[in-house]
Amino acid sequence: MTVAVPGRSYDVVIGAGVIEAAAEHLPEFAAAAGQAFSVSDRTVAADWYEPLGGALRERGLSPILLTVPEGEDAKSLEVAQTLYHQLAIRQAHRDDVVIALGGGAIGDLAGFVAATYMRGVEFVQVPTTLTGQVDAAVGGKTAVNLPEGKNLVGAFYQPRCVLCDVDPLASVPERDFRSGLAEVAKYALILDAELLDRLERDLAPVLARDPAVLEDVVARCVRAKAATVATDERDAGVRLLLNYGHTLGHALERLDAFSGRTHGEAIAVGMMFAARLAEATDLARAGLVARHSRLLASLGLEPEGSLPDADAILDAMRMDKKFSAGIRFVLLEDVGRPRIVPDVPEDIVRTTLEALGAGG
Amino acid sequence: MTVAVPGRSYDVVIGAGVIEAAAEHLPEFAAAAGQAFSVSDRTVAADWYEPLGGALRERGLSPILLTVPEGEDAKSLEVAQTLYHQLAIRQAHRDDVVIALGGGAIGDLAGFVAATYMRGVEFVQVPTTLTGQVDAAVGGKTAVNLPEGKNLVGAFYQPRCVLCDVDPLASVPERDFRSGLAEVAKYALILDAELLDRLERDLAPVLARDPAVLEDVVARCVRAKAATVATDERDAGVRLLLNYGHTLGHALERLDAFSGRTHGEAIAVGMMFAARLAEATDLARAGLVARHSRLLASLGLEPEGSLPDADAILDAMRMDKKFSAGIRFVLLEDVGRPRIVPDVPEDIVRTTLEALGAGG
Repeated sequence: MTVAVPGRSYDVVIGAGVIEAAAEHLPEFAAAAGQAFSVSDRTVAADWYEPLGGALRERGLSPILLTVPEGEDAKSLEVAQTLYHQLAIRQAHRDDVVIALGGGAIGDLAGFVAATYMRGVEFVQVPTTLTGQVDAAVGGKTAVNLPEGKNLVGAFYQPRCVLCDVDPLASVPERDFRSGLAEVAKYALILDAELLDRLERDLAPVLARDPAVLEDVVARCVRAKAATVATDERDAGVRLLLNYGHTLGHALERLDAFSGRTHGEAIAVGMMFAARLAEATDLARAGLVARHSRLLASLGLEPEGSLPDADAILDAMRMDKKFSAGIRFVLLEDVGRPRIVPDVPEDIVRTTLEALGAGG
Repeated sequence: MTVAVPGRSYDVVIGAGVIEAAAEHLPEFAAAAGQAFSVSDRTVAADWYEPLGGALRERGLSPILLTVPEGEDAKSLEVAQTLYHQLAIRQAHRDDVVIALGGGAIGDLAGFVAATYMRGVEFVQVPTTLTGQVDAAVGGKTAVNLPEGKNLVGAFYQPRCVLCDVDPLASVPERDFRSGLAEVAKYALILDAELLDRLERDLAPVLARDPAVLEDVVARCVRAKAATVATDERDAGVRLLLNYGHTLGHALERLDAFSGRTHGEAIAVGMMFAARLAEATDLARAGLVARHSRLLASLGLEPEGSLPDADAILDAMRMDKKFSAGIRFVLLEDVGRPRIVPDVPEDIVRTTLEALGAGG
């Protein structure tokens, strides 16, 4: 599958055994490319660095492993600085390659370092989690967190290619896998009625992680995202629709100081909230909330626990970098019909938050 | 004057009183633009923040001053992080404006922060030094330093406009002004025979900083740079020519740990070295070295002091991010005729370094 953004395009390879066969799938690099730096964490590297390293060697590159902390802890300026240091002491140059081997956090971090070390070196994404494959690795968003908020520092930087191997998905911890399913549900709800239909009718093979089914699910999500990114690389319009469930989701993550809920759990709450808001404002007919509720429950993503105070949530939502002039929401008129709604009255937002469990 | 890069173009306004009249010169910002963050140091801010802030207020923006350390000390990830923090706690968003008010270091730092905070906010350059105006502010290169080397982290990020006011040049310290003249000499030697002629014939008004003469000198350099950047935003080809004198210059700065020589003094040594190399390899006829020597002496930029060991210099030159496959040099066949020479034999490089005072 090819993703096209203005001025360049790149391949996304999806399937089983893709990492083993990476030597075939990697693009042509410049003749001067010598070193390939795989950014990964210990757990992922233990299983997948060896085959990837072999493929890199086959392509004439010297593989070097740079391990970073697991999960969101990797996404800091401090960790970025240690990577810069590792690149600098090995005299890495612009034709050398940085490879993100891991989940969404590693992709974001490694992408930011690749975008900014020497103002940009070659970059390849090898996402090993469902979230990484369906959402984070395609589209060119890279970022690290600040103490003040998630993804506040970053760059738009497209990879040279994305290798989505469904084999590593077999060993993703259950909670993380379900977090990825929240992004799958998002694509299904906003852009892919056929995928939604499948999730509603025949979820068992997805939950059982049947490789052929996952390949298809990943491909559908990547296709939806690629089409969106192709027309709007920088969040000016239609790409905002991919933010469904994320305005509240990001605010909750911010308020939880990035822990507590997984990203998927946070956006599951966000999608429930958006469905309620769509019904409360008469944008959508009754039934949308119930459909969200059933789908998220079947994915093990039913909102749980109480929410922070409505005022704190409202403040945190105003920090969303995509929404410069007040809070706007992506809401559904119906499944498959997303819309950006800029003018939801604050009292309805507040009432809906409270109905979901926010403090008053 | 307009600088065009693929996909966008921006104005460079050059003259006296430009900061006072900034309200006229600033571009249209989005309606949601609310805050304007001027990144500056205490010295520059003392003289120029008040008129700039007034102009911003006139344009309906809330001016906020963020002061950073003087000179190269500002260009660190640590200082960038304090700026991110300042932006985040004020809930700055993508339509808000970051303004670099100061020398080249402040432009590089503020540009990097503008490029990466929320993946890019509005950015304006107001360079107040000769180096900043003739070289650093136009072209979209932004960067901070690492302990391992200058400008190792950065982004290509074009400003919305560049305001070059020649009034602040009157109070630039003499040594910094002469450092800027090294960049002027570079443009003259590689791209502008008419400017070279003027510098050789009638230097007094330049050294006396006659505003009308400076306006013309700055305009000529900006025009040369803009033309180059327009065809090669990302250093793939012709933009490398602007690196004349910089391969050795950057290496010396690296070895001096960014102190000792000014940037201009370092590239003056680099240009002398390049001229000698051009003669030593018979690329240029005899006379080029003498002409460089006369020009640089008249600008107060004659190379002084000894150089580090040739081996150390060679190692440091290999770190140059523009030269991925071994060391390449920009050399002159004659003034106005630059060429990228990839295959200078190392023994000639070494001998030439030693002739310039490098340890053997």
